Amino acid sequence: MGFPFDTGATFRVGARFGPAAIRSMSVALRPYNPHFRIDLFKYCSAVDYGDLPTVPGAIEESNRRATAALTPLVRAGVVPIVLGGDHSISLPELRAIAEVHGPVALVHYDAHTDTYDEYFGQRYTHGTTFRRAIEEGLIDTEHSVQLGQRGSLYGERDWQYSRDAGLEIIPWEDVVAQGRAAVAERVKARVGQTKAFFSFDVDFVDPAYAPGTGTIEIGGPTSAEALDLVRRIEGLNFVAFDVVEVIPMLDPSQTTAALAANIAYEFMTFVALQKRRAAAVTK
Amino acid sequence: MGFPFDTGATFRVGARFGPAAIRSMSVALRPYNPHFRIDLFKYCSAVDYGDLPTVPGAIEESNRRATAALTPLVRAGVVPIVLGGDHSISLPELRAIAEVHGPVALVHYDAHTDTYDEYFGQRYTHGTTFRRAIEEGLIDTEHSVQLGQRGSLYGERDWQYSRDAGLEIIPWEDVVAQGRAAVAERVKARVGQTKAFFSFDVDFVDPAYAPGTGTIEIGGPTSAEALDLVRRIEGLNFVAFDVVEVIPMLDPSQTTAALAANIAYEFMTFVALQKRRAAAVTK
Amino acid sequence: MGFPFDTGATFRVGARFGPAAIRSMSVALRPYNPHFRIDLFKYCSAVDYGDLPTVPGAIEESNRRATAALTPLVRAGVVPIVLGGDHSISLPELRAIAEVHGPVALVHYDAHTDTYDEYFGQRYTHGTTFRRAIEEGLIDTEHSVQLGQRGSLYGERDWQYSRDAGLEIIPWEDVVAQGRAAVAERVKARVGQTKAFFSFDVDFVDPAYAPGTGTIEIGGPTSAEALDLVRRIEGLNFVAFDVVEVIPMLDPSQTTAALAANIAYEFMTFVALQKRRAAAVTK
Amino acid sequence: MGFPFDTGATFRVGARFGPAAIRSMSVALRPYNPHFRIDLFKYCSAVDYGDLPTVPGAIEESNRRATAALTPLVRAGVVPIVLGGDHSISLPELRAIAEVHGPVALVHYDAHTDTYDEYFGQRYTHGTTFRRAIEEGLIDTEHSVQLGQRGSLYGERDWQYSRDAGLEIIPWEDVVAQGRAAVAERVKARVGQTKAFFSFDVDFVDPAYAPGTGTIEIGGPTSAEALDLVRRIEGLNFVAFDVVEVIPMLDPSQTTAALAANIAYEFMTFVALQKRRAAAVTK
Amino acid sequence: MGFPFDTGATFRVGARFGPAAIRSMSVALRPYNPHFRIDLFKYCSAVDYGDLPTVPGAIEESNRRATAALTPLVRAGVVPIVLGGDHSISLPELRAIAEVHGPVALVHYDAHTDTYDEYFGQRYTHGTTFRRAIEEGLIDTEHSVQLGQRGSLYGERDWQYSRDAGLEIIPWEDVVAQGRAAVAERVKARVGQTKAFFSFDVDFVDPAYAPGTGTIEIGGPTSAEALDLVRRIEGLNFVAFDVVEVIPMLDPSQTTAALAANIAYEFMTFVALQKRRAAAVTK
Amino acid sequence: MGFPFDTGATFRVGARFGPAAIRSMSVALRPYNPHFRIDLFKYCSAVDYGDLPTVPGAIEESNRRATAALTPLVRAGVVPIVLGGDHSISLPELRAIAEVHGPVALVHYDAHTDTYDEYFGQRYTHGTTFRRAIEEGLIDTEHSVQLGQRGSLYGERDWQYSRDAGLEIIPWEDVVAQGRAAVAERVKARVGQTKAFFSFDVDFVDPAYAPGTGTIEIGGPTSAEALDLVRRIEGLNFVAFDVVEVIPMLDPSQTTAALAANIAYEFMTFVALQKRRAAAVTK
Repeated sequence: MGFPFDTGATFRVGARFGPAAIRSMSVALRPYNPHFRIDLFKYCSAVDYGDLPTVPGAIEESNRRATAALTPLVRAGVVPIVLGGDHSISLPELRAIAEVHGPVALVHYDAHTDTYDEYFGQRYTHGTTFRRAIEEGLIDTEHSVQLGQRGSLYGERDWQYSRDAGLEIIPWEDVVAQGRAAVAERVKARVGQTKAFFSFDVDFVDPAYAPGTGTIEIGGPTSAEALDLVRRIEGLNFVAFDVVEVIPMLDPSQTTAALAANIAYEFMTFVALQKRRAAAVTK
Repeated sequence: MGFPFDTGATFRVGARFGPAAIRSMSVALRPYNPHFRIDLFKYCSAVDYGDLPTVPGAIEESNRRATAALTPLVRAGVVPIVLGGDHSISLPELRAIAEVHGPVALVHYDAHTDTYDEYFGQRYTHGTTFRRAIEEGLIDTEHSVQLGQRGSLYGERDWQYSRDAGLEIIPWEDVVAQGRAAVAERVKARVGQTKAFFSFDVDFVDPAYAPGTGTIEIGGPTSAEALDLVRRIEGLNFVAFDVVEVIPMLDPSQTTAALAANIAYEFMTFVALQKRRAAAVTK
Repeated sequence: MGFPFDTGATFRVGARFGPAAIRSMSVALRPYNPHFRIDLFKYCSAVDYGDLPTVPGAIEESNRRATAALTPLVRAGVVPIVLGGDHSISLPELRAIAEVHGPVALVHYDAHTDTYDEYFGQRYTHGTTFRRAIEEGLIDTEHSVQLGQRGSLYGERDWQYSRDAGLEIIPWEDVVAQGRAAVAERVKARVGQTKAFFSFDVDFVDPAYAPGTGTIEIGGPTSAEALDLVRRIEGLNFVAFDVVEVIPMLDPSQTTAALAANIAYEFMTFVALQKRRAAAVTK
Repeated sequence: MGFPFDTGATFRVGARFGPAAIRSMSVALRPYNPHFRIDLFKYCSAVDYGDLPTVPGAIEESNRRATAALTPLVRAGVVPIVLGGDHSISLPELRAIAEVHGPVALVHYDAHTDTYDEYFGQRYTHGTTFRRAIEEGLIDTEHSVQLGQRGSLYGERDWQYSRDAGLEIIPWEDVVAQGRAAVAERVKARVGQTKAFFSFDVDFVDPAYAPGTGTIEIGGPTSAEALDLVRRIEGLNFVAFDVVEVIPMLDPSQTTAALAANIAYEFMTFVALQKRRAAAVTK
Repeated sequence: MGFPFDTGATFRVGARFGPAAIRSMSVALRPYNPHFRIDLFKYCSAVDYGDLPTVPGAIEESNRRATAALTPLVRAGVVPIVLGGDHSISLPELRAIAEVHGPVALVHYDAHTDTYDEYFGQRYTHGTTFRRAIEEGLIDTEHSVQLGQRGSLYGERDWQYSRDAGLEIIPWEDVVAQGRAAVAERVKARVGQTKAFFSFDVDFVDPAYAPGTGTIEIGGPTSAEALDLVRRIEGLNFVAFDVVEVIPMLDPSQTTAALAANIAYEFMTFVALQKRRAAAVTK
Repeated sequence: MGFPFDTGATFRVGARFGPAAIRSMSVALRPYNPHFRIDLFKYCSAVDYGDLPTVPGAIEESNRRATAALTPLVRAGVVPIVLGGDHSISLPELRAIAEVHGPVALVHYDAHTDTYDEYFGQRYTHGTTFRRAIEEGLIDTEHSVQLGQRGSLYGERDWQYSRDAGLEIIPWEDVVAQGRAAVAERVKARVGQTKAFFSFDVDFVDPAYAPGTGTIEIGGPTSAEALDLVRRIEGLNFVAFDVVEVIPMLDPSQTTAALAANIAYEFMTFVALQKRRAAAVTK
């Protein structure tokens, strides 16, 4: 489902058109994922649920409406894959998820932590999402991890809030130093089989691979590295996903939209694999 | 001065970068306006005051800050020419202007009336600006006029609010039917020498001439016609101006920014001509 | 409904993505048309039927599939408004229309006649559409008219085929010379109340207003003039419409898509007005 | 022939790629001009001579090389149609032309006079071309005219140099006031049958029609008006032409290149008509 | 030579303008290849042969014409380097090549196998090229290899056709796992000194490096890795080359065209090295 | 400070707008550099000095003016970080630097050596900068290094001038072969504590990461590799820096401008670290 909203953006804006762009490029996807050797629709059914209700310019009202629309779906057992929209949308998603599942582990791939207390004096923005979510008790911080942070900061304590709250931060420099395999193991060990939410900000990837986003940070992973880091943590117990911050007006060749569509496709593969495992167990 | 804000936008977004784009194209302007045969800086001094303080994502807070910053300038006798920004910015401007000058006549060139009561349930958006301004008593409606409206409406009574409030609406079809000269005379007659505020939305012009804006309406004036309709009402008693809704990401050849820069230049010419007249009278 | 096909294009290509782009910009349209003072959905119901089936790269096969899909709809009394796609799509549309209604009058606004015998030796292209349609007896040529032709030709007899076939051609130079009102009267007089098909190629309009199309011809009408020429012939007995040749990749500010959406909106208005008239008569 | 040079540009730059872009769009032109009812190649032969030799970054050296390459062609009776390149290229062209034909009448369609004495202290730029040409005695000023000037100036005497030198300036406002027919007669009367050079700067046209150029001035003619003003002066004794200032990087839909290609096509038509007249006289 | 054709494209389209774009960026190439320490034109001569004849919209007819035009060149000993155009062009090329040389080994760098049986029911598309070529006996499958395949598939047997036909597929994941050096040795060992055809689809490279193409697949090689994989197989007995699927409208900074020009340059280097080796042997 | 000049460019042009674009993206930078764990403004003060005076189209005059403006700043102890502008700007910078500091070591990251003797017969271009600087004795060649060269050359001796002059060239292929750590040690060992000038051409980076530049060379470093190679040589005695060749018109998503802003940020970090070290020593 789409979440066409960008009032949470503090710099370059336009992610309200992100869902449409991702859908547009998703038509080139095919049902069989050769990496995991699985035909997705043999194991799960998927539906484009359309867009969640939003109010451009009004973040708190949009959050309320989206949570209200999403909660019954989650309650009905749907595993939502939400297409953003700026990163502020993860908060109303988490409210719906936690309402049904209780606090969940956060797996957060992003160049930023999005745990600032406020931006321009505002408490609800795309840079404060996970601070609010932690304060509201939506996240099981002990099993949560933020991965890929890089770029300049406001100060040396920027990452401290997450750490004090119990999250683990694995900055991109650490991924490079330790290797993707080792880091993926750390993530898997930490999250375990806790119910988890996977939030993927396309600025996690280097801007060469995802130019169409607001707050680019150079020196990040290639799309191959990003895909690898996603695939390596397959097997966790994800109950919801999002992929956010696609701005089509900054994406002249639609490469960012294609990247996001592929990430969503891997997410759908995760669900199919869960279903296949569940089916195998049942037998 | 710039007003880099676009949280009021209900459709295509990005006018927060409008002021920078307009300034960028303004470097090609030269000091002598041959139409009015005047060397601007012989009669007035101008300064780029920088940008008004704004908070992306928070329209009411931005409005407060901008009004607070603008009011002392207006009080000091500055005639502000504000570069937007989406059209919601006219409200905080009008608050500052009315605080000093009392209610002013509105001269509003735009494809839309921007007098809806709400958008998506929100009272502060770029489509409700002048409704709020009228409700707050900032506009001397009897001497005010809206010119250039066209395009599809929500219903037959869309324009009625303005009319009931005492404004005159001259839709673009009427301009075409009556001719620019006659219409300009109507505007001048109506406004008289009331203190006035000129608000120019670039979507007044046909999208061929101003592609870089959010809510385009086809079938509008050429830039030549728009310029003519601006120049013809010179002589009114303007105390403030704005030119709004430039979205650089939708303006690949910077033609919309150039148009806006030229409109601001005509506004500056109006000020110079006022000063010249005042100087002549003094002598 | 969309007709996402562009294999008929002989120069710049990409109109297969035209329908999606037109839909995307159509969200800014509102239900009340102030020119005709009518609330569309009070008089007619409309549905986005999705896209007709096509086969990229295979024009004859696409034509067959589209005609097969469209015919039952026409038979059921639907008045189709087709969003192209290159101009070759009018042929399969006309086959469906004529199957139900018999030969229809053609009202064709375009910079070109599209009546060449072949292009690069091919009989089915976007430049041969109406020749084929005439040969197949789909068009009531005596009541048909082509309007707006301009630009360089292959030879002095390029327009002769249409004339020999009984169509009237009103080149753009004649429209300028005679005036839009007079020309519109000629069109109305010629078509009368014959069942008619309105085909609007966006290259009818000057490329300043419709840059996102394949075969641009400078020196054409503004969007205001084009809109006027559409509106002036309201009252004819249209049974089908299309608006074609939008290429989003050449339309960076989506102005061409907006133009096409507005033309389709006028077409929908025509249907609503027909219904209102029919309802009035019934009473 | 192309003249891929832009070191004379004082603002937006990139016209060195103009000739390639114009050629690219010229493939859509066809041999018969219906306005003048002539098949061009029945009366004249044309060849793409390739590009004149230039040295990026070195204006005086480029001028020398281009004049040296062009002079023998002019001497051999070729009527050159030069595709620019920034407007500084007209100077080396005029040197070659005057070398063979003596001083020629200048017919100059442009938003600017290009007769400044210097820019940033430089004597050879795209804004000083015709001042240098006059100083060098290359122009028969008594039979020359500059048409279409508009936009802000450095001072009230900007246009005085041309007038003092004996040229006639017809600013765009005068064209609007007097009408295109009357103005064209003035041009024809003034030039008479003097050998003439037609220089067409694409910024003559409004930026909606020619966004891909460096120094845009809003409020100019449509492409239809421009084309009309070109066609109306057919019959003069042109010995050379250029069309200049196309910048492809600012021309995302190639509309400016198409406009320039069409202007060059009209120039070629002028040559064909001259030949036809000459042939008729001979018989 | 160019092969400006894109009717075989099933998704994003416009490769008909690919050859012009590649040529445009090729002007920045210089004659000495420092990797192979060779001055190309000391050992081989090269000519831009222009474009092969094509018919937009008609794939089988285009194939016929192109094969007819290419065969005599191949027969005359020319080693063609063809600039595409969509990947359907390799089929008519292979027909010409096999006509002269008999079946050749295929070295195919691509994100896809292009061995589907049909697309939308069509047998001739850019996704079925090599199936047709194998069926027609144009490829010596035992010495052939496809390298770089990745992305989602229609089903688990998508790659089976190639394998059943005797080709080797080395998906991109295998290249990553085994290393480029080892994989290049596999390719060289397999092809040996069989006469070979090198077909390089720019979507082989990650879309960050080649955004200007139709069917992008994320997670691919960098341009450095791609270049390395090309250079490492130097020494094979190539008799023809192509580089395909460049779509300029999706390539705003011309980086894809530059990539393709460089790949063609490496191909030309291969020819020069062959000639140098042959000359050395002769002595 | 900016150096908005591009007359030295021999191919794609427009770097005169580079400084504005880099500043525009620099607003997303924050004061704390986590890699070096330093809050920049605790140790150094920085000011945007505006643009150096230039004359478009006149390289030698621009050089003179820029050197004249820069020299007093360098003399006053300012460590300039210059934002280009094409690479010709390093020459006037070096003249100012050497005037104060004497010949300096050059650390030059670039795909090209820029040590050609002339381009199109011109001695002052962006491809001859460092030849002129060496000839003028501005560079301490024994302690200088050029890193990252790749792409085709004019001949095998292209790199010989640098080597004969005493510079070390480390082509990109050598960096790949030897590893970044080893290469960085070579650079540090060679430069030692000689006063040094760091010149970073954005075409050093692969065009996927820096599309917005004139002379792209494929197969280069990622932005992560580039950043690493910059950071690894921290500790040298830099007295001036520049980052050059950003062309905004070729940078649709502003990724190149963001890269350049980040490189300048690392340069500023170098200065802050120097100051911190100096402060520590003082205590």
